[in-house]
Amino acid sequence: MSTLFLRTLREDPADAEVASHKLLVRAGYIRRAAPGIYSWMPLGLRVLAKVEAVIREEMVTAGSQEVHFPALLGKEPYEASGRWDEYGPNLFRLQDRKGADMLLAPTHEEMFTLLVKDLYSSYKDLPLSLFQIQTKYRDEARPRAGLLRGREFIMKDAYTFDVDDAGLEEAYQRQRAAYVRIFDRLGLEYVIVDAMSGAMGGSKSEEFLAPTAIGEDTFVRSPGGYAANVEAVTTPVPDEIPYDDAPVAHVEDTPDTPTIETLVAAANANHPRADREWTAADTLKNVVMVAVDPSGARAVFVVGVPGDREVDLMRLEAALAPATVEPATDDDLRSRPELVKGYIGPGVLGPQARDEGVEYLSEGDTAIPYLLDPRVVSGTRWITGANEHGKHVFDLVAGRDFAGDGVIEAAAVRAGDPAPDGSGPLELARGVEIGHIFQLGRKYAEALDLKVLDVNGKQQVVTMGSYGIGVTRVMALLAELNNDELGLRWPAHVAPYHVHVVATGKDQDVFDAAESLAAGLEESGVEVLYDDRPKVSPGVKFKDAELLGAPFTLVAGRGLAGGEVELKDRRAGTSEALPVADAVAEVARRVRSALA
Amino acid sequence: MSTLFLRTLREDPADAEVASHKLLVRAGYIRRAAPGIYSWMPLGLRVLAKVEAVIREEMVTAGSQEVHFPALLGKEPYEASGRWDEYGPNLFRLQDRKGADMLLAPTHEEMFTLLVKDLYSSYKDLPLSLFQIQTKYRDEARPRAGLLRGREFIMKDAYTFDVDDAGLEEAYQRQRAAYVRIFDRLGLEYVIVDAMSGAMGGSKSEEFLAPTAIGEDTFVRSPGGYAANVEAVTTPVPDEIPYDDAPVAHVEDTPDTPTIETLVAAANANHPRADREWTAADTLKNVVMVAVDPSGARAVFVVGVPGDREVDLMRLEAALAPATVEPATDDDLRSRPELVKGYIGPGVLGPQARDEGVEYLSEGDTAIPYLLDPRVVSGTRWITGANEHGKHVFDLVAGRDFAGDGVIEAAAVRAGDPAPDGSGPLELARGVEIGHIFQLGRKYAEALDLKVLDVNGKQQVVTMGSYGIGVTRVMALLAELNNDELGLRWPAHVAPYHVHVVATGKDQDVFDAAESLAAGLEESGVEVLYDDRPKVSPGVKFKDAELLGAPFTLVAGRGLAGGEVELKDRRAGTSEALPVADAVAEVARRVRSALA
Repeated sequence: MSTLFLRTLREDPADAEVASHKLLVRAGYIRRAAPGIYSWMPLGLRVLAKVEAVIREEMVTAGSQEVHFPALLGKEPYEASGRWDEYGPNLFRLQDRKGADMLLAPTHEEMFTLLVKDLYSSYKDLPLSLFQIQTKYRDEARPRAGLLRGREFIMKDAYTFDVDDAGLEEAYQRQRAAYVRIFDRLGLEYVIVDAMSGAMGGSKSEEFLAPTAIGEDTFVRSPGGYAANVEAVTTPVPDEIPYDDAPVAHVEDTPDTPTIETLVAAANANHPRADREWTAADTLKNVVMVAVDPSGARAVFVVGVPGDREVDLMRLEAALAPATVEPATDDDLRSRPELVKGYIGPGVLGPQARDEGVEYLSEGDTAIPYLLDPRVVSGTRWITGANEHGKHVFDLVAGRDFAGDGVIEAAAVRAGDPAPDGSGPLELARGVEIGHIFQLGRKYAEALDLKVLDVNGKQQVVTMGSYGIGVTRVMALLAELNNDELGLRWPAHVAPYHVHVVATGKDQDVFDAAESLAAGLEESGVEVLYDDRPKVSPGVKFKDAELLGAPFTLVAGRGLAGGEVELKDRRAGTSEALPVADAVAEVARRVRSALA
Repeated sequence: MSTLFLRTLREDPADAEVASHKLLVRAGYIRRAAPGIYSWMPLGLRVLAKVEAVIREEMVTAGSQEVHFPALLGKEPYEASGRWDEYGPNLFRLQDRKGADMLLAPTHEEMFTLLVKDLYSSYKDLPLSLFQIQTKYRDEARPRAGLLRGREFIMKDAYTFDVDDAGLEEAYQRQRAAYVRIFDRLGLEYVIVDAMSGAMGGSKSEEFLAPTAIGEDTFVRSPGGYAANVEAVTTPVPDEIPYDDAPVAHVEDTPDTPTIETLVAAANANHPRADREWTAADTLKNVVMVAVDPSGARAVFVVGVPGDREVDLMRLEAALAPATVEPATDDDLRSRPELVKGYIGPGVLGPQARDEGVEYLSEGDTAIPYLLDPRVVSGTRWITGANEHGKHVFDLVAGRDFAGDGVIEAAAVRAGDPAPDGSGPLELARGVEIGHIFQLGRKYAEALDLKVLDVNGKQQVVTMGSYGIGVTRVMALLAELNNDELGLRWPAHVAPYHVHVVATGKDQDVFDAAESLAAGLEESGVEVLYDDRPKVSPGVKFKDAELLGAPFTLVAGRGLAGGEVELKDRRAGTSEALPVADAVAEVARRVRSALA
């Protein structure tokens, strides 16, 4: 410790919100170099190497071969796959001295595809599984939480190549099993949930989420075993309802009802229904949104959801990827005067507007696209805007009086909603994505023309999977899930050192004894950090040991006179005296047991 | 081999000029991803890891602590040091989504300086030595020779921090000794030469050059032990010569003498001297050059060298760094009509032109800067241009008739030139730079305000060293120096595998025996690549083994019937029969001996 490049800090960094970020900086594991970009100090690098080693071992055991791709690449492969554009502002782009467009790779599907195309040509060459542990770049709009969402980060990305769907399924299951082993070995709790493929493309995908309140992802679970990222939850579609006996739609004066709450109150006061009270679920809320495509082009559209649900921006965005989505601004509304704020209804939207060629459309304008919640099936009856200030239309029947341009999963999922597979009511929780596995299928192989001759001598497009683990994120999460108010509490197998040996006092005998204990432990294969600082008080040394978070601290101090040293177990929070003569053997035994 | 991600190629890649580039690609170690940017295949990654391990071990032994910095950084630290501009087009620059200027770091002096400043404040914290093994970026104008000069490459860079010059000298010598151990362990021959610091700044620097004809660096050696990069060679300055009795300078007609050769012939024919013939060394050649500063601004200047020497562009550029230098174009000459091609002389250059306010200077023009070779000392007499077509001036005496704006080391060094330290005549050779160590001194600490309190409580600017090894370049050089017409011939300690086991023929017994040999060797701690491909001919397998270059190949084939296998030593070029029963023990013994 007297020479280790380390300064522990008593103050939390100003930009840190979550415990792992605060503690990894305060304990001298990482240091901010730029927004979302970190330097690794000696202790941090040791933990990172241990996390990487576990991942590497399990990848090799799963039959994957290690390679390594550049981070800096030409744009052509990414243009061929469409991702040069699709990634939008999340991609770091640059030009070299000759003006050639280049990028810092956010992930390497294209390059792996091209490499295999370059070298392989027959079904006999497959199956193939490759992986790398490599530095990746994404220009996140809001880098946050230290290593949890950075702009430069380390990923393990693996790719599989198969000649048919059955091969892909087998490769996918083998990677999935490897992920289970990796996270089990790292001691991380996780939930495997159905996921959206997003910008990656492909058919099936699952996420490994670590449940934690600081997670950016929301996921659902049912008692019957359904689990999905909230973005991937599909709404059970109700049966259609016959509307032969439904009343004719009628427009009513509803002054001062710009919100669902005021509308429901006015409806119950002035237009009560006989059987029960109106509720928010009887209203159709039309929300004006703007989709921004990766080139930056903006398009106004409207989402119709039952009035008792909010629009979930992340679900909406997942449904419209690679576009991003934002609420319409006042400027957007002013540009479309047919949208009467607070009183928007289907009449001016989508098919209705187009069918009727309504006169409010300025020259060159087209009707605003209209996307409906899956619950708005044929025959459902709604109170909704009449497109005039202070007026709503009642008994407007879907399929009879209006339709959408399409269906979209945009409404928020709520606890108690039914699971789409009928396995019971959903509960919601938050988590951090630590792994994501994709059955890409043939998207990249088709875009980049990766084919092999099959057993019949015919050209077959190869089918692929891709499989990612955020290595630096996993390390942050280990810190997030293993700490207390005093500092970090590493599990033994990822701790930078197994035992923190502390010499207290000023007596040279104490330092000699501590040094000899440290040397003895190292000879037994235990990794030791020895606090040999001569003029630092015991209190400061203990605080540092607690902050750094080695699983065991061995203290040589006053007790030595009586032949005793003190062993503290950081994770159990216990402390006990050991005879100094047995200390090395006993501590080494504890460490081996913690590593087992 | 039947599942290894590898395809050996029979053809050299079209863009490859040097053996290491050809062979590393053909043998499937690396693969081009973009100009100067390579992907690493499984075999390449294994060799790279072994090279890295040697470097890491010796750095740690030398007391350096490992850290890791980002590649993507903000421009501010590099602006503070001046290198944001100085690096010119060699720096990959980009902007993030918010328009902030960023760069891909070519080396990390600034970041290390800032990190130490961030955490340390007292002389008691020093000395400190830190290193990283990390991916670096330089936008080389001419990436070439595969890994030898790439745009994305791996470097080990180390930095030392000391409170005084004596500390820096000690740190520098410790790093230097570590480099000696590293290159000795890697089996690389090297010469340690004095070097220029270039864009890095600082005072003393030395290069480790591996002598090879394909090297881009030229270095010199003397019998007395002087060694320097040719860029760093200083010319011994001759004594001044009294010129009291020198004739008055006189302009002579010298028609059709635009070159030194024609001038010398004309002088001997028409203006012979009494004592001896005129030679090229009697003429002063004035060469028009253009300096391009990192911002791209061009400045014309003239270099005066004895007519028997060429201007060495690399020496000139080293002297003028960070500017780059190019020969003047016809356009440059036309823009300065006072320069009469083939007849340029001091009269229109530097101090002469300024002193005399000569009329050829257009409004706004200044006299062209004039830099002289160190041999042009006061009293030397020259034949040189008279700035009129077909005329030269004779007996023009330096110090009496003309002077330069300064002295510059621009003339080519030749074999036989005297060493500047008087240690004898120089010989010239070519080499590749594999390591470079710098005493940076206080340049970066001053620019970035890194100070510590000294023992007297006063603020002291820290003094630094920086120490680089091109890790990927070292691997390329190992390939360059260890190959023959059949392929690679790795030294055992960096070979991807120690033993290549080959099963030949179609007999299942042969495959069983080979597999058992491979397994036996692996149990003995030997790294084995087993060629188990069932339908590949022995000829192809042997060719592949030779190309891949493991130090030993163990062949199981027809000899098995007689109880024998064949052991080939790739580096010795020998082959011998071994009893199959002893094969594992004997081969393991050979491998251990090769690794010792």
